[in-house]
Amino acid sequence: MPITNREVHLVRRPDGMPVPEDFSVVEAELPDIAPGQFRVRNLFLSIDPAMRPRLSAGQALDEPMAGGAIGRVVQSLNPEFAEGDYVMHRWSFREYANLDGRGAQKLAVDPALSPSVYMHVLGGSGFVAYGGLLAIGKMKDGEQVFVSTAAGSVGSVAVQVAKIHDCYVIGSTGSDEKCRWLTEDLGVDVAINYKKEPIRSALKAAAPRGIDVYFDNVGGDHLNAALPRMNVLGRIPVCGMISAYNNFGAISDPVTTLSNIIYGRITIRGFVGADFPELKPAFDEEMTAWVKSGR
Amino acid sequence: MPITNREVHLVRRPDGMPVPEDFSVVEAELPDIAPGQFRVRNLFLSIDPAMRPRLSAGQALDEPMAGGAIGRVVQSLNPEFAEGDYVMHRWSFREYANLDGRGAQKLAVDPALSPSVYMHVLGGSGFVAYGGLLAIGKMKDGEQVFVSTAAGSVGSVAVQVAKIHDCYVIGSTGSDEKCRWLTEDLGVDVAINYKKEPIRSALKAAAPRGIDVYFDNVGGDHLNAALPRMNVLGRIPVCGMISAYNNFGAISDPVTTLSNIIYGRITIRGFVGADFPELKPAFDEEMTAWVKSGR
Repeated sequence: MPITNREVHLVRRPDGMPVPEDFSVVEAELPDIAPGQFRVRNLFLSIDPAMRPRLSAGQALDEPMAGGAIGRVVQSLNPEFAEGDYVMHRWSFREYANLDGRGAQKLAVDPALSPSVYMHVLGGSGFVAYGGLLAIGKMKDGEQVFVSTAAGSVGSVAVQVAKIHDCYVIGSTGSDEKCRWLTEDLGVDVAINYKKEPIRSALKAAAPRGIDVYFDNVGGDHLNAALPRMNVLGRIPVCGMISAYNNFGAISDPVTTLSNIIYGRITIRGFVGADFPELKPAFDEEMTAWVKSGR
Repeated sequence: MPITNREVHLVRRPDGMPVPEDFSVVEAELPDIAPGQFRVRNLFLSIDPAMRPRLSAGQALDEPMAGGAIGRVVQSLNPEFAEGDYVMHRWSFREYANLDGRGAQKLAVDPALSPSVYMHVLGGSGFVAYGGLLAIGKMKDGEQVFVSTAAGSVGSVAVQVAKIHDCYVIGSTGSDEKCRWLTEDLGVDVAINYKKEPIRSALKAAAPRGIDVYFDNVGGDHLNAALPRMNVLGRIPVCGMISAYNNFGAISDPVTTLSNIIYGRITIRGFVGADFPELKPAFDEEMTAWVKSGR
């Protein structure tokens, strides 16, 4: 039956940093499900840096915003999705969604784990961290690794995967509290609070043996600081340039140390999670085991 | 016997753009050759952009400058080098050099060709162009290719190799005369005089189907202009950043369009000619045949 649904709409394109006035909480009627459809109650939604560019182009105005979500089927007229099934889909920012199966996939939730882990460490951001280091960054055991936004959804998985591979790991983040979390809970060797120390000198001090893999989520000043520290044949997998996201039009903070890539024969490689589908089975198996064992 | 040798010395480190006062032509006595040595009369020397950083660090002051040279043996007390042999070595900027064989290699000069071709198209710059496109840039037949400093020693070979591979080729250079040479003699599809038109808009107009491979010798404004034009999974082999060479300390012109590499999944890869030794036999064979056939 039709229900009243609470939704978050984008009502105005942000100019630089998004502000609350760019969004509105709207009550709208959700029609009854038609044959082939099912209704999901959303349980978790993921708010990712990559959403920022879509607010400037891509996300329609005056409609509920799209984004990753995990929900549970509450009513179904679709034989493939039964009441009680967990579903991962892209219709977040609303309490309920009527779906027809396209863009939705059933989640086999391990009974020992919360379904929310499939939203991060066992989901897209975990896969990006795992594949970014191993497939794109070709990280080898014991290498020198630097991760920016190391306390973020991707970075926090990346530093742990690097530690499991016996790497020396440097992480940057924006508060002393997060620095403590990185070193005390996640085992990071050196954590840099880039808001308190200039990233360039801090990184130089933290990386006496240089950097083999820089997992870049930021671009701009962090990339500028990392390039002169890269070892020969170093690799820089890039899955985000947060420094650019609030300036729409693909203008990132200026990078002025790129000439280091020539004699260092450095590789910089932009990537998305879809670039290494062949890694998915190994990821599911290894990462699930690491999570369940507490590593 | 000892002879009077004319040499070019570096007498002062250039501050920015080198000026004549940074150098001096010096007459010095060259001692007689000792057992194991041989004397070369230099015939050709190569002046390369890559020499500029060495003027700031690496090249000793008040000594003859080092750089690629081709000479001919005029006297020998070394059984491996006979009078009349052509030799490629690193002791340029002097009329004669006494060598002991280290850092020198004999050149088998094809009798149909001038020995000078081993200094460019069949030498290091030709090999960098060939391997940069094929090994690092993974250029495929028929792709969209952009080459900066297209009229230079590396660029002019790169555009011709790309045309032989049936690519659509855009080249940038700094004068109308060089533009005419690129399009009329080398077969480049579109030549851009970056001193007359802004490289960004000119490149956008010249690349209606985007760019698959950007062979970058410049960095800075050219890299900035190329990044937004790159096709998905595009590749940017980088063998020089001329824009940075007169500002020592690895400061290149700011690049602000790097965030394009993420969704485009672009690879930027610095390289030197030593990165693809396995290509040398194919290069010698193919390139010699192309040169002799006039292609």
